[in-house]
Amino acid sequence: MYKVVGRIDRPLGRAVTKYVYDFSEGNKDQVDLLGGKGANLAEMTRLGLPVPPGFTVTTEACRKYLAAGDEPSGLATEVDEAISRLEDTVGRRIGGVSDPLLVSVRSGAKVSMPGMMDTVLNVGLNDESVEGLVTVSGNPRFAWDSYRRLIQMFARTVMDIDGDLFSDALNAAVESAGVGADADLDAAALQEVVAAFKQIYREQTGREFPQDPRRQIDLAIKAVFSSWNTPRARLYRRRERIPDDLGTAVNICTMVFGNLDDRSGTGVGFTRDPATGTPGVYGDYLSKAQGEDVVAGIRNTLSLDEFREIDERSHDELVDIMRRLEIHYRDLCDIEFTVERGKLWMLQTRVGKRTASAAFRIAAQLVDEGLISIDEALDRVTGAQLGQLMFPQFDQTAPRATFTAGMAASPGAAVGRAVFDSATAVEWAARGEKVVLVRKETNPDDLAGMVASEGILTARGGKTSHAAVVARGMGKTCVCGAGDMNVDPDARTAACGGVTVTEGEVLSVNGSTGEVFVGELPVVDSPVFRYLEEGLDVALGDAGSDSRELIAAVDRILIRADSVRRLGVRANADTSADARRARALGAEGIGLCRTEHMFLGDRRILVERVILAESQAEQDEALEALLPPQRGDFVEILRAMDGLPATIRLLDPPLHEFLPDHADLRVKVAIARERGEVDEADVSLLAAVERLHESNPMLGLRGVRLGLVVPGLFRLQVRAIAEASVERIKAGGDPLAEIMVPLVGSVTELRLIRDDAEATIASIAEKAGVDLDIPIGTMIELPRAALTADRIAGAADFFSFGTNDLTQTTWGFSRDDVEAAFFSTYLDKGVFKVSPFETIDLAGVGELVRIASVKGRARRPELHLGVCGEHGGDPDSIHFFDRVGLDYVSCSPFRVPVARLEAGRSALSALATG
Amino acid sequence: MYKVVGRIDRPLGRAVTKYVYDFSEGNKDQVDLLGGKGANLAEMTRLGLPVPPGFTVTTEACRKYLAAGDEPSGLATEVDEAISRLEDTVGRRIGGVSDPLLVSVRSGAKVSMPGMMDTVLNVGLNDESVEGLVTVSGNPRFAWDSYRRLIQMFARTVMDIDGDLFSDALNAAVESAGVGADADLDAAALQEVVAAFKQIYREQTGREFPQDPRRQIDLAIKAVFSSWNTPRARLYRRRERIPDDLGTAVNICTMVFGNLDDRSGTGVGFTRDPATGTPGVYGDYLSKAQGEDVVAGIRNTLSLDEFREIDERSHDELVDIMRRLEIHYRDLCDIEFTVERGKLWMLQTRVGKRTASAAFRIAAQLVDEGLISIDEALDRVTGAQLGQLMFPQFDQTAPRATFTAGMAASPGAAVGRAVFDSATAVEWAARGEKVVLVRKETNPDDLAGMVASEGILTARGGKTSHAAVVARGMGKTCVCGAGDMNVDPDARTAACGGVTVTEGEVLSVNGSTGEVFVGELPVVDSPVFRYLEEGLDVALGDAGSDSRELIAAVDRILIRADSVRRLGVRANADTSADARRARALGAEGIGLCRTEHMFLGDRRILVERVILAESQAEQDEALEALLPPQRGDFVEILRAMDGLPATIRLLDPPLHEFLPDHADLRVKVAIARERGEVDEADVSLLAAVERLHESNPMLGLRGVRLGLVVPGLFRLQVRAIAEASVERIKAGGDPLAEIMVPLVGSVTELRLIRDDAEATIASIAEKAGVDLDIPIGTMIELPRAALTADRIAGAADFFSFGTNDLTQTTWGFSRDDVEAAFFSTYLDKGVFKVSPFETIDLAGVGELVRIASVKGRARRPELHLGVCGEHGGDPDSIHFFDRVGLDYVSCSPFRVPVARLEAGRSALSALATG
Repeated sequence: MYKVVGRIDRPLGRAVTKYVYDFSEGNKDQVDLLGGKGANLAEMTRLGLPVPPGFTVTTEACRKYLAAGDEPSGLATEVDEAISRLEDTVGRRIGGVSDPLLVSVRSGAKVSMPGMMDTVLNVGLNDESVEGLVTVSGNPRFAWDSYRRLIQMFARTVMDIDGDLFSDALNAAVESAGVGADADLDAAALQEVVAAFKQIYREQTGREFPQDPRRQIDLAIKAVFSSWNTPRARLYRRRERIPDDLGTAVNICTMVFGNLDDRSGTGVGFTRDPATGTPGVYGDYLSKAQGEDVVAGIRNTLSLDEFREIDERSHDELVDIMRRLEIHYRDLCDIEFTVERGKLWMLQTRVGKRTASAAFRIAAQLVDEGLISIDEALDRVTGAQLGQLMFPQFDQTAPRATFTAGMAASPGAAVGRAVFDSATAVEWAARGEKVVLVRKETNPDDLAGMVASEGILTARGGKTSHAAVVARGMGKTCVCGAGDMNVDPDARTAACGGVTVTEGEVLSVNGSTGEVFVGELPVVDSPVFRYLEEGLDVALGDAGSDSRELIAAVDRILIRADSVRRLGVRANADTSADARRARALGAEGIGLCRTEHMFLGDRRILVERVILAESQAEQDEALEALLPPQRGDFVEILRAMDGLPATIRLLDPPLHEFLPDHADLRVKVAIARERGEVDEADVSLLAAVERLHESNPMLGLRGVRLGLVVPGLFRLQVRAIAEASVERIKAGGDPLAEIMVPLVGSVTELRLIRDDAEATIASIAEKAGVDLDIPIGTMIELPRAALTADRIAGAADFFSFGTNDLTQTTWGFSRDDVEAAFFSTYLDKGVFKVSPFETIDLAGVGELVRIASVKGRARRPELHLGVCGEHGGDPDSIHFFDRVGLDYVSCSPFRVPVARLEAGRSALSALATG
Repeated sequence: MYKVVGRIDRPLGRAVTKYVYDFSEGNKDQVDLLGGKGANLAEMTRLGLPVPPGFTVTTEACRKYLAAGDEPSGLATEVDEAISRLEDTVGRRIGGVSDPLLVSVRSGAKVSMPGMMDTVLNVGLNDESVEGLVTVSGNPRFAWDSYRRLIQMFARTVMDIDGDLFSDALNAAVESAGVGADADLDAAALQEVVAAFKQIYREQTGREFPQDPRRQIDLAIKAVFSSWNTPRARLYRRRERIPDDLGTAVNICTMVFGNLDDRSGTGVGFTRDPATGTPGVYGDYLSKAQGEDVVAGIRNTLSLDEFREIDERSHDELVDIMRRLEIHYRDLCDIEFTVERGKLWMLQTRVGKRTASAAFRIAAQLVDEGLISIDEALDRVTGAQLGQLMFPQFDQTAPRATFTAGMAASPGAAVGRAVFDSATAVEWAARGEKVVLVRKETNPDDLAGMVASEGILTARGGKTSHAAVVARGMGKTCVCGAGDMNVDPDARTAACGGVTVTEGEVLSVNGSTGEVFVGELPVVDSPVFRYLEEGLDVALGDAGSDSRELIAAVDRILIRADSVRRLGVRANADTSADARRARALGAEGIGLCRTEHMFLGDRRILVERVILAESQAEQDEALEALLPPQRGDFVEILRAMDGLPATIRLLDPPLHEFLPDHADLRVKVAIARERGEVDEADVSLLAAVERLHESNPMLGLRGVRLGLVVPGLFRLQVRAIAEASVERIKAGGDPLAEIMVPLVGSVTELRLIRDDAEATIASIAEKAGVDLDIPIGTMIELPRAALTADRIAGAADFFSFGTNDLTQTTWGFSRDDVEAAFFSTYLDKGVFKVSPFETIDLAGVGELVRIASVKGRARRPELHLGVCGEHGGDPDSIHFFDRVGLDYVSCSPFRVPVARLEAGRSALSALATG
């Protein structure tokens, strides 16, 4: 009486889980189970391409192994059976004394991951089968060298024995043979090397090098499994937020040899040029070599055209296969191949990495070739790539002297004199020099120097290092982790590849590619930026042909993005110049116009009068004097955004920000006292500064609080907005001002300001005889505002999420204070995957955005929702804002095209999942 | 075919809503509908007490009137009918020319509310019925005076005519008659006054004074309705968070006259002494007078014993009624009564207000008398009252000279010299004087002076004024709004009732009662505090009889609270002395032991060495030196709390708090430079201070962030805690330390600290050969921690809500920066009802507490939850924490008894509603 409820009721047995897949069984969609490499080998096998036969042990086997500390039951049998099938297929036996079958054992996780065990070649060789290899290859030297390589790799990667022991022994053999390199050792010498290697193995492990090929395979599989949990792999996963429970697959593949004879060789290729996107296959070939040799760059490689001259048949077959792969994968593929005695074998393929410009060009080409749709093309490019293309670039045609290369940590093209400490950077910058700060690595003490520099170059640390995090936060160009560069701060030099740069020498740093050059490279405007700002015709006018194709591709994809996106894109713009630029770049309005700057410059003195006023009347008078310039600003902004909404935020920062620094002034007054030259104006200014001094200005009397305590302030601003609107209407314009109240935590605050503002607007409208319809809304930038959004929506026409402040209050840290102090530690320790100021923190800040959106719309379904924090221009965050149903994002004008593109991509993925 | 589903299906008609209730129809539970006064008049009528007949117009009629701007249909007819019934009952006709029926019209909301229209007496008099009153009273003077009073009150309260016009006319009549006061005017003169009043009425309204009594009633009812929405009433409601849509009832009651003849009079009474709680009725009587005269204190009143001598029958009836009322209401009642020609009439009753000590004594007495249960007694007292009783008090037996009285804004007994500005307060306090700051009102500029003072006294502002809010925040004694006091800051004097206090004179300020005395009153310890700290026997030893009864009452009620409460009560204690005191006061453990102080004093230099260390080794060494004193502190605390849990929070503030002030140091160094006397130690200290300087230290590198950046710091503290536990265990103790990690925003932060701490503890336990079971938990004090509590619970044995910081981050304001700057404005404008630092903000901060509790328990059902912010000692907040299911609250030792009491009361209300 069994009731069948899925798998759980099946009788137990080895058939329940299948741990081993022959290459002929899988396909490219099984990356979860077979890993990236295994799935693509299976796919090529399925396509009938010449893949050396083999099989894949699944990630599930790995997971069970790691959980139980032992092989899952049944795995050994399955591997036995797979080996038998393999032996039957190729007609050779593993460990066989004549024509032995050798295999490679390779890890292959879902995503490629540094820190894991990579490869063991020539598995299956032992003291007997090496003789078989001698026979069948007719090349004793080759056979013994292969055996020597197996022991060396196996010992190092499977048994974790110090690799230097083996290279030392090899060097000793070279020396004792009196030859130049190990490639010159003959078979007899190599046979002795094998003996020496086996001795080392014995000494280090207390065991013999395993002669049983099955045991070699077994140990190698387990080593791959275990390498999933090396500290380096774990650290990498924590940083990249890759789940710890994926596990890795293991690929066991028949060995083919590119180093067997003159009719053998090995190479890599791309189905298009991944650097430029130029169509046509592209690759390198090395005769009589193994894969490692191509990567190591020991000898000069041949182009594919040169390869054809040596081996036209293999070449033509390869090119044909590459075309088939591209059509099959519908994208740029990269490949690895080997020719063994004139027979072509495909060893790997995958969708290839490419530069930003190649991404756009290839996507457009594939559409033209009918391989993908325009929507797929849109999905193939990213906002980050478009952003890179918008930066000024080094002139590609200028001569250049490469100095070093590291990680492209923060994009841009920076040119400046090399300085080696923060103080010098500050000092030189103060006298007008452009500088590049060069450090082993940076720490919080370097902050001032980083601010003063055009660009930052470090020898150590990755994309989450202090230098990288802080530079991105500042928008500074940065290349980090240039590991070949040796920085000597005492000598004030940096050396790399024989070139030494001394303090004051000019460096050119390409933060988009990671390249660093000696001397000043000319910087040219980005053709893509020119297109975005001035339009297709202007930009195409004087561009070269590659640029023309690129511009056309960007245009085509961006038009598509605009046509599919649901999310509006506005810009943060504080001046009419910003507003015009934003509009040119495609902004559909202003999402945030900060009014702080309107209180600076010449007008600062007026603000001082407001603050220092000794009576209400004096204060009112000072406020009144601010009205005309404020109104003038708004008229210009509304003119620039005519017909599009312009959300103007009332004054946000605390008043004391408009006064001199407290400590500076105290020192000034104290010294004046000491000298008997006290200026009474300074004394009363100091009194005002001290009265307004706050321990935590970010959490002080600012925003709506200031508006309620000094009611004349907001009323002045509302008047200026309303009067500017009247002026624009009377001039025939279509001003669409919206008033935004900052730092609201309670609906009562908003209600009080709103009542006052509505009265002001109504009286101005009546006086002018025009209709004024000015929506009034609020920033949602405090957790309490988000949590009580249902109440607040009762007094708000719109919400705009101020995700910068919301991140600060939700996490309880101030960006200024903590980013440099501990964000790199936090990224390193895996607390963050990415700074929460770059990409919205979904679990905390994102949750508040979600809560506020749901509660706000529940109270007022027509409530308009936007975001105006910096996250509004961040790709991942844009997808979140789209999912959560906001109406628009607002970002800096330069990020507008990025936001348009990502909003389009997000709409596609909503279609796909919705 | 009607389906009957409640009222909605009834046929429409005037029977649907009943707007008018005769006093004989209602009862005391109908306060929502009939208002407080109306419900209690009905109750007394129901009890058969001699209440003048009348009726109540419901709050529902008011709500409809205010919504529609007009009387609801049917109301007029109901009032007509009620008047007819009233006329039938009393056998007189309103407006009748012989023996006319007169009525009073009074407002009566659910809660008594200043700013609303109060009373119109003698309604029903007109040019004809006044003659009837002459006849029936046999007293023409009385009749014309009554008519004069009606016109005057009606004009002022119903028609909003300036009252001065009438008093001026009355004074003119007195003058022209050549008599001393209006009481000396004869009937003829009063008849002329009536004519003059009618003339004023005509001039001011353009209409005749209404002769139709029905119209008088109608206008008076509408005036009461409308007075619900006066600005003053609205402001009051906004401050007190009374809903705007309650509306007020209107009571129309047959007039009885205490001023008719010598056999008439009026009085007020209490069923027990509301000041001390002494049993026995208590009251004042005034012969030949109306209610207003008693309140105005024109003549000396008689005690109830003296009243018996004049009118024994009425007196005995009154005392009998008071006893009946007390038994019926089962509580202290206050009453108003009138005797008209020897006949007693009850005009009002309600449960009476009382002092804190009376509240406890009366509650215990009523239990003894079998009127209420011990649980009801517990419900009748409050934590706020107990808190008041714990403060030192002025010696009740000492002679005293009252100066003025205002609102009891912040409890305590403060003695000091009067100063009239902040600078003087600071200056005098700096030289060791105790001062009391006397101001018209305070503003943020007075902050330093308030800090320097023992107490604060202001002439203006209520319990939400700046002075009151800030004083409560500081725990300073404060009396505010002493409206009779005239403060002259230029002359440096304060005058009240003929007494002038000059600068330097000593004042004694009672913040618990609002009284202020000239001269130094001796302060005595509170007997209740003595009982709480030293136990019943000690406290009873030398107490007077009133104190003995009070102590016994507190003891009895507190024992009951302890036996019914679910919520645990712990204390915030940083030293062993605090811990001992807390334990004596009933704390069941330490909820928060801050370790900051352990880094101060002599040890500050060690911290400086940690901060200024130039190498890791130097830093480790400096940390090591901190270990022994830290361990010593913990040993003492664990000894004091032996057997009870002690939650120790790892270091929370940023490191720079242990260094000198930045601006001070800059000035010092600048002046030294100026003088050419630079101290290099100061220069390097300044460099360290600047390196650590933060713009917003509250949002900076502190708590767990500091723990992760300087890992040795927390490790040192964990070691000290673990080693102290070992020492206590080896000494035979039962230490129950718990480690609390501050400022966690992400589970990864906690996980990293926890892993390290567990390893440290395990190694110490192993070395010592003892078992150490030290739970590790976290503060929930950031919105992100609350929002991701499910994740955080995965690494926490307990949560402790740090509601101070949580309030700061949820609202985005820092208590230090904003409380003085704008909280009084916010309380005034109704943004807050109470400071969110006093009582937890339910909608924002409370919501996060709720979310975190639910999410945390969902992940880990056994998760222990507590709160250690100051809200842990606040009555309203304690009820919330109980409802939301926390395990304990932790508060300052002095608040422990308050928390025990309120936790007990909360448990009762949970029983009642659960």
